[in-house]
Amino acid sequence: MTDVTVTICTTCRRAGDEADPRPGTRLHQALQHADLPQGVKVRAAECLSACTRSCSMILAGGAQRWTYVYGDLDPDLHLEDILSGIRAYKDTTDGLVPWRARPVIFRKQSIARIPPQNDPQE
Amino acid sequence: MTDVTVTICTTCRRAGDEADPRPGTRLHQALQHADLPQGVKVRAAECLSACTRSCSMILAGGAQRWTYVYGDLDPDLHLEDILSGIRAYKDTTDGLVPWRARPVIFRKQSIARIPPQNDPQE
Repeated sequence: MTDVTVTICTTCRRAGDEADPRPGTRLHQALQHADLPQGVKVRAAECLSACTRSCSMILAGGAQRWTYVYGDLDPDLHLEDILSGIRAYKDTTDGLVPWRARPVIFRKQSIARIPPQNDPQE
Repeated sequence: MTDVTVTICTTCRRAGDEADPRPGTRLHQALQHADLPQGVKVRAAECLSACTRSCSMILAGGAQRWTYVYGDLDPDLHLEDILSGIRAYKDTTDGLVPWRARPVIFRKQSIARIPPQNDPQE
């Protein structure tokens, strides 16, 4: 199955949040040390242009999978849900995890999704 | 240069907008009949999960380019700007149009951007 890339914005933070390291940096570090399946690559980005929805994260996985952009993630509250959501996404060929199998944060905090480059419906 | 795909959500509309066809459908039709460079493919999608930012549109172009998600587009007011933004994006190899060369709607109405799958910084 095609590899999956998790991209996290390490720059932005919510208004009033002055903590360091920033939430995206902490989420990036936590995912790098987490128990994720082989073929899941974690990378940082300086800007995902979703600055008001910090911290934000993208799940992508080749030309056959849908890409998802999530926001308002909290590295303290949401880490386990994020990990289970990444694992479920990795297990698909098209990126479409059944609705009930998605963590609630993925159901409610999706900013956008991008259809596969190779759309099977076409 | 790699082909570019423009994806438009044809479903959502702003609150209170009852017009038919829907704005995304009208934008999709307008782009299909517009004078766009060879290698630009226009497709419709039923849901881009950006429902509160209708109408929404994605510019993507292979593993070397950044992908952009735009929202709050108006097929009547913004068509010429959208066309010039698509042409400028097609002219890049990495998807990064210089800031001043971007239509103002692309500067101000970006919902998210996704780094290239093959990130040259890595």
